[in-house]
Amino acid sequence: MVHYILGIDGGGTSCRAAVADADGRILGRGKSGASNILSDPDNALRHIDEAARLAFRDAGLSEDLVKSSSALLGLAGNNVGDAVNYVLTRLPFKRSKIVNDGLIALQGAVGAEDGAIAILGTGTICLARRGSELTSIGGWGFQVSDLGSGARLGHAALQECLLAHDGVRSVTPLSAELLAEFGNDPEQVVGFARKASPGEFGRYAPRVFFAAERGDETALRILHAAAGEVDAALDAVAAIMQGEGRLCLLGGLAGLYPTYLAQRHRNRLSEPLADALTGAVSLAVSELVAEGFGR
Amino acid sequence: MVHYILGIDGGGTSCRAAVADADGRILGRGKSGASNILSDPDNALRHIDEAARLAFRDAGLSEDLVKSSSALLGLAGNNVGDAVNYVLTRLPFKRSKIVNDGLIALQGAVGAEDGAIAILGTGTICLARRGSELTSIGGWGFQVSDLGSGARLGHAALQECLLAHDGVRSVTPLSAELLAEFGNDPEQVVGFARKASPGEFGRYAPRVFFAAERGDETALRILHAAAGEVDAALDAVAAIMQGEGRLCLLGGLAGLYPTYLAQRHRNRLSEPLADALTGAVSLAVSELVAEGFGR
Repeated sequence: MVHYILGIDGGGTSCRAAVADADGRILGRGKSGASNILSDPDNALRHIDEAARLAFRDAGLSEDLVKSSSALLGLAGNNVGDAVNYVLTRLPFKRSKIVNDGLIALQGAVGAEDGAIAILGTGTICLARRGSELTSIGGWGFQVSDLGSGARLGHAALQECLLAHDGVRSVTPLSAELLAEFGNDPEQVVGFARKASPGEFGRYAPRVFFAAERGDETALRILHAAAGEVDAALDAVAAIMQGEGRLCLLGGLAGLYPTYLAQRHRNRLSEPLADALTGAVSLAVSELVAEGFGR
Repeated sequence: MVHYILGIDGGGTSCRAAVADADGRILGRGKSGASNILSDPDNALRHIDEAARLAFRDAGLSEDLVKSSSALLGLAGNNVGDAVNYVLTRLPFKRSKIVNDGLIALQGAVGAEDGAIAILGTGTICLARRGSELTSIGGWGFQVSDLGSGARLGHAALQECLLAHDGVRSVTPLSAELLAEFGNDPEQVVGFARKASPGEFGRYAPRVFFAAERGDETALRILHAAAGEVDAALDAVAAIMQGEGRLCLLGGLAGLYPTYLAQRHRNRLSEPLADALTGAVSLAVSELVAEGFGR
């Protein structure tokens, strides 16, 4: 009997699964809803199960095979023991392993070799793997970390609006537009910012890039400061990697950032080899097979 | 019968009252607990009443005179209509007027003339008065404003700790000390920061100044960035004042900031003429007497 392997990429907006044979050949894929094991573990479990079943169905296989498969899951929140234990004991697979969502992204982007990624999305985190050593930089969240992230860019844009309103900065098209969306009322900006999630701040980030392209001074000031922080994180990555391995930018802002980064880092960038889901399958095969329960 | 006038300075940690005669001569003072009309209006009312009674007692006068007195109160949160209405209808005085807590500080610091203040405490706000025009800059709160405030300095110090932990910044005595206080565990820093109030962040601010005095690079980087933001706010004040009037720094960080500010602003600084409570009495006399209910 063939023993199937599942790679799962679970995040705050969706859960994706791929079923593969023991050689890592992907046979089918499935996608379902959010799988945040910290904020809503029961829904996460439901969506993980659903994505896995859809992958088996997509492969033309019986959904019942889910129960006898081995799965490697890359999930945000994997560092919170209680959440992991709760989920691990309730997963539908024969054997399961939960790893960091960044790890499967790294594996997808750079393959099994040494290499590093900078995930530039709502949050920011860098992961560098050299030999058996895996180092993470940043990723501690919006409140006191993730400089250069979409959330911080959006936050900075709103802050600049208030400074422009008060005459501390020149008003530019970006600050005027954003302030107008809040009825030109600083109290409304403050009210929004008090309750906004990182994702809600992050929605303003693409507009900072678009305004910067048009030469908006507010946007350029925000971006140069943010890119300086991403550069500093990449310098720490470079110190670890010593010029070896791929360096890939991932996440929603990966395509927008490069022109603002230092030339020393831009010269090192390459396209990711594959996505996080492929990384999950690849890790599943290498780790699970190595542990002898792949076949 | 003498009609007494009360000046009241109410804030988040204490409430101070001074009773004066119709000429503004202060006869007695009283002090009680917190009077934040937004977060706890009933306690604020209790403490305002208590401070006023203590002031009359200090003056050797009957506490019953509170009921026939006219009061001017400088209170934080004066811009939130509901809170003001709730408090105004429940105050024990014959006549009451609530103004911004910044306004009584301005009146105390620069007297009845044109002038400006920068309050550098847990939050930051600048107030500039020229002729009948009063302009405020900043003061929108920790979340998206108050750059250079104690809360933002403390926040920046914790952020620098995490960057030092991750190898993005060099470790300096300040970042090493702070990180050690959190058990060298970034998760503990994040846990603190998620729940910390502006005041709790602000408790780290004096240590940033003390470390900077010893040449700590982390502290100096934080302070130069923060002082640059205070300078920018003072530039906006200078544009309003056109070189006229006093400029005073107030608040807990007023004594620590000057050496980090631009020379163009340092040259303009002078000591405040008096404190906010004196400002409240002075405003009470001029405004209340002008409106004809002082005598």
